Amino acid sequence: MKADTAWTVRGPLRLADHDPDARPARSSSREADQARLDALALEIDRLQTLMWAQGQAPGPQAARAPRLLLVLQGLDTSGKDGTARAVFSRCSPLGVRVAAFKAPTEEERARDFLWRVHAQVPRAGELVVFNRSHYEDVLVPVVEGGIDAAERDRRLAQIKAFERLLVESGTTVLKCFLHLSKAEQAKRLQARLDDPDKRWKFQASDLATRAKWDDYQAAYETALAATSTAQATWHLIPADSKSNRNLMVAERVVEALRALKLKAPPTDPALEGLRIDGG
Amino acid sequence: MKADTAWTVRGPLRLADHDPDARPARSSSREADQARLDALALEIDRLQTLMWAQGQAPGPQAARAPRLLLVLQGLDTSGKDGTARAVFSRCSPLGVRVAAFKAPTEEERARDFLWRVHAQVPRAGELVVFNRSHYEDVLVPVVEGGIDAAERDRRLAQIKAFERLLVESGTTVLKCFLHLSKAEQAKRLQARLDDPDKRWKFQASDLATRAKWDDYQAAYETALAATSTAQATWHLIPADSKSNRNLMVAERVVEALRALKLKAPPTDPALEGLRIDGG
Repeated sequence: MKADTAWTVRGPLRLADHDPDARPARSSSREADQARLDALALEIDRLQTLMWAQGQAPGPQAARAPRLLLVLQGLDTSGKDGTARAVFSRCSPLGVRVAAFKAPTEEERARDFLWRVHAQVPRAGELVVFNRSHYEDVLVPVVEGGIDAAERDRRLAQIKAFERLLVESGTTVLKCFLHLSKAEQAKRLQARLDDPDKRWKFQASDLATRAKWDDYQAAYETALAATSTAQATWHLIPADSKSNRNLMVAERVVEALRALKLKAPPTDPALEGLRIDGG
Repeated sequence: MKADTAWTVRGPLRLADHDPDARPARSSSREADQARLDALALEIDRLQTLMWAQGQAPGPQAARAPRLLLVLQGLDTSGKDGTARAVFSRCSPLGVRVAAFKAPTEEERARDFLWRVHAQVPRAGELVVFNRSHYEDVLVPVVEGGIDAAERDRRLAQIKAFERLLVESGTTVLKCFLHLSKAEQAKRLQARLDDPDKRWKFQASDLATRAKWDDYQAAYETALAATSTAQATWHLIPADSKSNRNLMVAERVVEALRALKLKAPPTDPALEGLRIDGG
């Protein structure tokens, strides 16, 4: 289950060269795919529980327990919420947390753009999903004209230094870009409009963003290429197929957790052979 | 009132070459020095109020207002509390804040060492004093054996990247090392012990730290030399004389604030010539 290197970002990137409807993780059987996703979700639960246990063990070792940050980026309707729901469907909320980043508040804008992001990084043993992230700050203001190219490049360098700090401090940084086609987005936006139960997810600004499709693709290409490092690699996730998207992200999470070689934390030797008195 | 470059750190540092009892900021008159400190404190109040106003002005400009971070480092009894008290004696607490960093808590140790520090950086318009700081993390564990030289060097690089982020985001980073002699520290520790009202400040661990005096001096030399950059320079403050220490730090704060060329923020043109009806 080694990640397919065809879908990792190394150097310059042209998104148009990567088919959003590719399905490298899918088989021909819908049932088999569902069963495999469930098996992956169970494995994520098992490994995540071990990781959390390491962060909770008594003694100073706990502070050095590994932690995982999963960054989910993608345009509107690319499936960030759905991915988080499917991949962690078997996990306990204990030790798994989603941090969603909306447009920054006044207090957040009054600090550097990484301030609110740093506050949300995983503690030892924790698995945190970023639903949007610091990457919005090298996408939205680039396209909408809030910052110039020099400031964008400064931010990209700042992001690399920040992620390096996280990695050097024991965090696995796993970054997934949910790659959606413009046609598929149209279908999904229309479906949101047509369904009264989902209409709350639709915002008029989604259409304004969609109108700048090519600009956002270009901004993503620059940002992903500049920040995909050996320690914090960007993975492209073809996202027109939801089952492919969920399987690919789940595979990468399992792979990242397995690389940590997690074991149950050491326990008090005095507990060995202890029998609880039933009386 | 340009800072004396003899007391700024540029490259390799030998603290023994710098007299902790030097008094470059003092005159021969105690009264004149006190009057000058008061004038500096008033000027800091005036400038800090302008800076705070810029961070509060209506509109998106407020988020880009300048901000000042004063890092105070020094051994026990070097006068970090006293400096903050004297230099900001004329300031309102509105827009001036002291963040003190003690030994990290369990929750803090469960993140990278800069996590709790980043949380406390000044917002736009704000002046924040760090009483101890992220530099403790390249001093205490170095001397006490918690980290090796490779990890220390990683942390020093992480500190430089972090301070660079702050500077590039509009923060002036002013770092002062309160340089105390071993003999003066003995006097001050004894005074704490002898005064029932000050004994609460004394801890048995202060003596254990004092016993490693040379190691701490060496750790400071390495840390200061490695992190004194053009954008975030370390200033040596001879601190055996309290009045010299206060004057020198106050001078540097005034200099940093003046460099911002602060003006009252723009106001609504409609207010021009407005007369309040007394009826």
